[in-house]
Amino acid sequence: MSAAKYIGIDLGGTKIAGILADAGGTVLCREQIPTRAEEGQEKVITRVFGLIRTLLVAAGTGEVKGIGLCTPGPSDLKAGVVIEAPNLKWKDLPVVALLEEEFNLPVVLENDANAAAYGEYIYGAAKGRKDLIYLTVSTGIGGGIIVDGKIVYGRDYSAGEAGHMVILPDGPPCSCGRRGCIEALASGSAIAREAKALLMKEGQRAPGQASLLWEITGGDPERLTAKEVGEAAAQGDPLALSVLEKAFRYLGIALGNLVNLLNPEIIVIGGGVAAMGPLLFRPVVRAMETTAFAHMCRDLPVVPALLGAEAGTKGMVALACRKIPAGG
Amino acid sequence: MSAAKYIGIDLGGTKIAGILADAGGTVLCREQIPTRAEEGQEKVITRVFGLIRTLLVAAGTGEVKGIGLCTPGPSDLKAGVVIEAPNLKWKDLPVVALLEEEFNLPVVLENDANAAAYGEYIYGAAKGRKDLIYLTVSTGIGGGIIVDGKIVYGRDYSAGEAGHMVILPDGPPCSCGRRGCIEALASGSAIAREAKALLMKEGQRAPGQASLLWEITGGDPERLTAKEVGEAAAQGDPLALSVLEKAFRYLGIALGNLVNLLNPEIIVIGGGVAAMGPLLFRPVVRAMETTAFAHMCRDLPVVPALLGAEAGTKGMVALACRKIPAGG
Repeated sequence: MSAAKYIGIDLGGTKIAGILADAGGTVLCREQIPTRAEEGQEKVITRVFGLIRTLLVAAGTGEVKGIGLCTPGPSDLKAGVVIEAPNLKWKDLPVVALLEEEFNLPVVLENDANAAAYGEYIYGAAKGRKDLIYLTVSTGIGGGIIVDGKIVYGRDYSAGEAGHMVILPDGPPCSCGRRGCIEALASGSAIAREAKALLMKEGQRAPGQASLLWEITGGDPERLTAKEVGEAAAQGDPLALSVLEKAFRYLGIALGNLVNLLNPEIIVIGGGVAAMGPLLFRPVVRAMETTAFAHMCRDLPVVPALLGAEAGTKGMVALACRKIPAGG
Repeated sequence: MSAAKYIGIDLGGTKIAGILADAGGTVLCREQIPTRAEEGQEKVITRVFGLIRTLLVAAGTGEVKGIGLCTPGPSDLKAGVVIEAPNLKWKDLPVVALLEEEFNLPVVLENDANAAAYGEYIYGAAKGRKDLIYLTVSTGIGGGIIVDGKIVYGRDYSAGEAGHMVILPDGPPCSCGRRGCIEALASGSAIAREAKALLMKEGQRAPGQASLLWEITGGDPERLTAKEVGEAAAQGDPLALSVLEKAFRYLGIALGNLVNLLNPEIIVIGGGVAAMGPLLFRPVVRAMETTAFAHMCRDLPVVPALLGAEAGTKGMVALACRKIPAGG
């Protein structure tokens, strides 16, 4: 085993997570700090520098071969420039050049969903498979597509926008400004919105007849998130169950479309909403199987992500490892 | 220029087309015979042998380096076996082994939509691009996806089933047994079905008020195909126009989904229905642009296929060329 080490950074809207790991993905050190995007992009980049410095100290002299960084939103990966990251309040930031200058180390930039997909591919739930689809279902829905062991990038490095697959052209409005995207039908926000609407429609019923969600939210549906809907559904609440059933049917149809298009070996679903387990996986697989051709669904694993919050940082270690030679 | 020549065969449900071409795609000889699938798979394969023999004679001794064959329906391309081709009445036929034994030449097998996509990629409308989506819109809808210059195959060599992307989960029934696939919404059959239904609903009106389609079909809507709907639309018939507008909006939404997923450099649309020209391309592009992210639609050509009926045979020459070394 080479002593080569890599740093993987996952820069999100609320936190910056970093790991120091070897080529096998073993984490030698992990650090996390808040992003504080509201302080402006220069302060954020300084905080990233600080986190990397901490990890470099942990590594010892001369051992780190490169740095991998993933960010949300569209980037020009070739030029190493984050084009727009609204969560970070970044615009046209040549982050690779900045980091390379500061640390005199090669830097690899990647989109966060692709990084997580790659992490699951190399170290996680999709280890050993080379054609896979990764979906993350949380507040929004994101995706990464790996074909024959390579991330599908497309012309502008923007491929993989599975969350904005329209499957109900005149459906509910999406955060992207369109209608009927699966993000508007099956994301955490969509689930919360739908449950709220049903609760308001139901109104305050007599105790014993009303949805458990009244109790869970202390009578205030505005406080509802997908997490509470999942909790109520797990306790058998009919309203919560019907919301999830409908949302995950749509998610399964979208997955079926992806199966027909890409014929993957495995599908990995991560993100907060996927933590609902069988409440999500059962209806999703059922709808996928009624949508996609039978021979492509046969023995097709649809599994939860394994790396959790570390998919992004580990994916960046894997990508840095692959793209940066270890020699020297 | 090498003297190497290749044979490309496109085996369809009604005809078997074959070409002899050089590595640059210049056709030196073309032949076509009927398939006569009803005579059984042995007779059909014998007819394929005959066609190849004719092309070999045209080539002269020792000049042909290999044969490429494309067929409809699912195949195990690695094993060289056509798993099921209902149009040909073929089942589990080891066609590569049969051809290699007969001609003592290397043989490459491919799915027909992938072959056409590859033909357009190497010699046609997508020449010089490496990320492309090819759709064929005729009786049904088929597709081929090329990422970074390579056909996307997936686990079972079944990727690219764009025609069965569901975008209207409770929509009209599809030939595949599901509902709301784009094939059920925008194929030639779907257009004819929709126009018939509207005509029957409209009933026989007074001359001058009725749809032109009554006249075109001699008063018998049962005779209607997409071609007549296109003709009536070209003459400004409101009923025909509304049918096409609706169908191609759905096709454009599906295309928008594909753009978001794959971020291609170019989209090529072939098949009989694409011959409608602007009647198809205008609403398709409009709906695609309202569905996909703006930066991925910017300067994205959506163009008609260039190779027409020869996309399959030329694609097979290109694939044979790439997969079979010319030396010797």
